[in-house]
Amino acid sequence: MVIGASDGFTPLNAFDGALLRAGIGDTNLVKMSSIVPPRCQQISPVPLPPGALVPTAYASITSEVSGEIIASGVAVALPKEPHYPGLIMEYSGRGTKAEIEDKVRRMALEGMKLRQREIKELKSIAIEHRVQMAGATLAAVVLWDREE
Amino acid sequence: MVIGASDGFTPLNAFDGALLRAGIGDTNLVKMSSIVPPRCQQISPVPLPPGALVPTAYASITSEVSGEIIASGVAVALPKEPHYPGLIMEYSGRGTKAEIEDKVRRMALEGMKLRQREIKELKSIAIEHRVQMAGATLAAVVLWDREE
Amino acid sequence: MVIGASDGFTPLNAFDGALLRAGIGDTNLVKMSSIVPPRCQQISPVPLPPGALVPTAYASITSEVSGEIIASGVAVALPKEPHYPGLIMEYSGRGTKAEIEDKVRRMALEGMKLRQREIKELKSIAIEHRVQMAGATLAAVVLWDREE
Repeated sequence: MVIGASDGFTPLNAFDGALLRAGIGDTNLVKMSSIVPPRCQQISPVPLPPGALVPTAYASITSEVSGEIIASGVAVALPKEPHYPGLIMEYSGRGTKAEIEDKVRRMALEGMKLRQREIKELKSIAIEHRVQMAGATLAAVVLWDREE
Repeated sequence: MVIGASDGFTPLNAFDGALLRAGIGDTNLVKMSSIVPPRCQQISPVPLPPGALVPTAYASITSEVSGEIIASGVAVALPKEPHYPGLIMEYSGRGTKAEIEDKVRRMALEGMKLRQREIKELKSIAIEHRVQMAGATLAAVVLWDREE
Repeated sequence: MVIGASDGFTPLNAFDGALLRAGIGDTNLVKMSSIVPPRCQQISPVPLPPGALVPTAYASITSEVSGEIIASGVAVALPKEPHYPGLIMEYSGRGTKAEIEDKVRRMALEGMKLRQREIKELKSIAIEHRVQMAGATLAAVVLWDREE
């Protein structure tokens, strides 16, 4: 689970800066929808080879409105039964870290309720940024197979 | 080929509910552009392992306008020559199932015409939903290798 | 590095036509963020099997405003040290080929500056299109392993 924020020359440069600060800036993220395969373990930092194709669930927002507060967050809900998959929710918007993180946690709880799956653990991470010229925030859950 | 619709706590929760109803809610969809590799066969249901990375062509729409009708559809055009690839088109919008399905079928016909490729079969599937709080519809074509 | 532009029946058909003109229209693009793995070589044309899943960094824009000029470009910055990854930037917007290509080149320079990585070579490619009914432009960098 990683977060980053940055300002930059354009929204894409700001996004690139946010990826670098999150520690995943020299990889090729492939956006995926948001399930934790059974028996995953959390590792940090993630040892990603440069240029690797990395399946990632993420939320990101960019803004060119100077002074605006933007934020991104992800939440991971892990089930009591270890052979069931967990759920990732991601959310970005105008607002503070606390607001975005609270919302994304509730989204993950709702998603597990919909699956009627009991929760062992709910983790979350979020970041906010005050835009200068072009700003970006990012929160991501990276899946990686250590064997690769 | 699968479809789903749902209301939810947020647009992403509604999308998650639509994925669950489509039978692909516990996998990691990776969005792809829209070609059917030669010699694919249609299978149903698709036996996807939980958390698997699943290449999928899909259209989805979310709406928070209560009472609005939204719909998503996909069409698959298969060529007469079995060694040529087929074409997937996906479309979402405000409107009924019939309107969206009609449009996505015409999109697939146009795409095959552009390729000057004769059509053996044109399949389609679509779904509509009347939004309550936050609604989502989804129509998808999942590619899966049975060997995996 | 490829480019294409097209008009079509719908924005997605125009995008499909742009992919065909770029020579990647019968493959399944998977959008990725934008790093050149170390020791990649530029090849042209890319021998892609029909229906293959192809990791691609791309910018695309569609417009239904008749007469509007739209453009897409990509830039690739390669580092002096061959064991470091390079950087891809992509950009689309209303505007001419010259404007978009100039901007995307500056975006790539900024991204390498942020990484404090000296540049050996900066390549770029861009295309513009005047919209008739529904128009699309596309500029892409395709990653492919010749062994596959």
